[in-house]
Amino acid sequence: MAFAEFRPLDEKSLVEYIKVVPSLFSKLGNKLDGLTIKEVGDGNLNFVYIVVGPDGSFVIKQALPYIRCIGESWPMTKERAYFETVALKEQGHWCPDHVPEVYHFDRTMSLIGMRYLEPPHIILRKGLIAGVEYPLLAEHISGFMANTLFYTSLLYHSTTEHKRAVAEFCGNVELCRLTEQVVFSDPYKVSQYNRCTSPYLDHDAESVREDNALKVEVAELKSKFCERAQALIHGDLHTGSVMVTLESTQVIDPEFAFYGPMGFDVGAFIGNLILAYFAQDGHADDGNDRKSYKEWILRTIDETWNLFHKKFLALWDEHKDGSGEAYLPAIYNNSEVQHLVQKKFIEELFHDTLGFGAAKMIRRIVGVAHVEDFESISDAEKRANCERRALELAKLLLKERRKFHTIGEIVSAIKQVQ
Amino acid sequence: MAFAEFRPLDEKSLVEYIKVVPSLFSKLGNKLDGLTIKEVGDGNLNFVYIVVGPDGSFVIKQALPYIRCIGESWPMTKERAYFETVALKEQGHWCPDHVPEVYHFDRTMSLIGMRYLEPPHIILRKGLIAGVEYPLLAEHISGFMANTLFYTSLLYHSTTEHKRAVAEFCGNVELCRLTEQVVFSDPYKVSQYNRCTSPYLDHDAESVREDNALKVEVAELKSKFCERAQALIHGDLHTGSVMVTLESTQVIDPEFAFYGPMGFDVGAFIGNLILAYFAQDGHADDGNDRKSYKEWILRTIDETWNLFHKKFLALWDEHKDGSGEAYLPAIYNNSEVQHLVQKKFIEELFHDTLGFGAAKMIRRIVGVAHVEDFESISDAEKRANCERRALELAKLLLKERRKFHTIGEIVSAIKQVQ
Repeated sequence: MAFAEFRPLDEKSLVEYIKVVPSLFSKLGNKLDGLTIKEVGDGNLNFVYIVVGPDGSFVIKQALPYIRCIGESWPMTKERAYFETVALKEQGHWCPDHVPEVYHFDRTMSLIGMRYLEPPHIILRKGLIAGVEYPLLAEHISGFMANTLFYTSLLYHSTTEHKRAVAEFCGNVELCRLTEQVVFSDPYKVSQYNRCTSPYLDHDAESVREDNALKVEVAELKSKFCERAQALIHGDLHTGSVMVTLESTQVIDPEFAFYGPMGFDVGAFIGNLILAYFAQDGHADDGNDRKSYKEWILRTIDETWNLFHKKFLALWDEHKDGSGEAYLPAIYNNSEVQHLVQKKFIEELFHDTLGFGAAKMIRRIVGVAHVEDFESISDAEKRANCERRALELAKLLLKERRKFHTIGEIVSAIKQVQ
Repeated sequence: MAFAEFRPLDEKSLVEYIKVVPSLFSKLGNKLDGLTIKEVGDGNLNFVYIVVGPDGSFVIKQALPYIRCIGESWPMTKERAYFETVALKEQGHWCPDHVPEVYHFDRTMSLIGMRYLEPPHIILRKGLIAGVEYPLLAEHISGFMANTLFYTSLLYHSTTEHKRAVAEFCGNVELCRLTEQVVFSDPYKVSQYNRCTSPYLDHDAESVREDNALKVEVAELKSKFCERAQALIHGDLHTGSVMVTLESTQVIDPEFAFYGPMGFDVGAFIGNLILAYFAQDGHADDGNDRKSYKEWILRTIDETWNLFHKKFLALWDEHKDGSGEAYLPAIYNNSEVQHLVQKKFIEELFHDTLGFGAAKMIRRIVGVAHVEDFESISDAEKRANCERRALELAKLLLKERRKFHTIGEIVSAIKQVQ
């Protein structure tokens, strides 16, 4: 290894590091002339450096032993970089078109070197705030989710492979615990970390903390999150974990990855699209009422689920005589039973998606970490009105999710929120 | 360690072994005079020696690298002895009155030394066949299940402890796979290992293999078994894994233990009591029509569930402000919500119990390993009639389990089977 023990890098020491790591140095054509290094970590947790030279480029991501946006008062294992790397490689294996390549990993330094997603790649969330339509987004993200979730589940794994992989990712418990706290716990209780658009949403936040029916449902989802090792999930698949251009969709930052319920990923993505939808009225101005953009978001929600569902079942059909041990072909040996088990599976996954998606929406409005979709609406009252509508929908979805059967019904419910 | 590498022991080499293992030798007062050793392994998997001397006694259980009742053609990791030991110690910690003490474990030799359950302890299944009433059975077994399942779940564990323990027991995958095959797969397909009381039940066995609705339900249960790490379950809690006297109830043989769904244990026990019930007509004779014994079994089924349910909720109430992270007291902070989450939890556990119990019944009638309750009925036609009634009830429970809400309704359904 390059450095004998962990130390946080800065722009200067990073150059020393690159010099002694052939897998990185070679990416720059083995020279450092004309190198530019820029720290761009705008996320909540890590430091990220873009390294560009005349002959090549990469990104360096280093995990520090605390949560960046909170500070050293909230320690967090830097081993998350290891799990992020394992997940990037696994997801990249199953979906190379939509996952950046890993060039280098240094466990001692908690440091990943990976492909630089060059301009015009931007964070999807920023594109959604700017009102940019991404015609291939639903196609791409549905492919990412279908592939990564199918191929890491018992629909493809033997139980031997599955238990080995589950055991390894049990090691990523600290990141799971962060999710447990900020998604499933803090929003439903008084917590020093909770924030909301005050005073407008004070009463709404209090209502969440006093809603017994909501708490019953969120308990079920938390148990599923903690106990059900269904597939290797990304664990943080919101619109800030996706980089896009009009032609490219790249899923980054799987440091929360572990074997959990599939609906947590699908729900995270769809839930964040719904947040983007409700934020649009806050971004509307005289030049652009955002009406047609809102329609595009709704179409993207619809297509994301429908394409995901279709691709997932196509993979299942393709591999139904394969190595997966959940549904042995000698048992599920006629088209009627195959149809019945798939229908049941997808229905449960749909309801999980709605539940987890709703929980992720709620926590972004009354929990610790908010989303730029709303935060960038400077008028607090206007922002609160947007957030309140999203919150009302999320509460409905969480409590009544089993009454919905198609994504079209969800789109209708979104439109009906006043 | 006593011996440098694994070797199967026999009565003679066992004496050599005991001599060099102080924790065993001392149990015999450090002498070998007057020692008797008897091999009594009547189970499916292992060799078991009872060692009795004038000043003490113990049992030696050794796992061989295959399944004893099948032979070397079905290899099975001898590491199961390690997981059995860990489980015995954990269960013994939470329920010392109903778990035999472990004196010695040798991982190299896959050998456990533990308390000898002296006469009149017999295997519960044999007592049920003989028509013996055990007045404390429901009280004891419900206590075992409530304690071992509660204290190893997220109702008591932090998620950190839970994930560590889950990861460790992922190593017991071979034993889990055996269950997956013989409980959830083989009975629903053509398999060389399946047996049934032929020709009487040939058609019934075929019906199981052609019942699409049944296959859909068993798939859901199999997924839960493979994916849901709810608590440290015994994994094989049938009436052959319990030794009893009128005053004592001891749970043995947890080599199938892993973190799985609680209902698998509760269902195994209740399902096997139901098998015992349906076998009684085969054991009736002029001297004893077994009618009052059948009533006792039904009462025991009723009491087992009701006492379990009551004790489990009492533990939950007792520890609701404790270390368990599933339901934080700051969220589940009023009696209404506490009541709602407990009701929902118990209802799901009840339905899991019925589903897993039914699956365990079915596999004992049309799968590889049958139960002595039926096997000891020598008249094949009479045996088939008993088995068919149990099978019909099991199919009903598996398919319609969500329609039942109390154990009383189950007892009524049992009585209604003609």
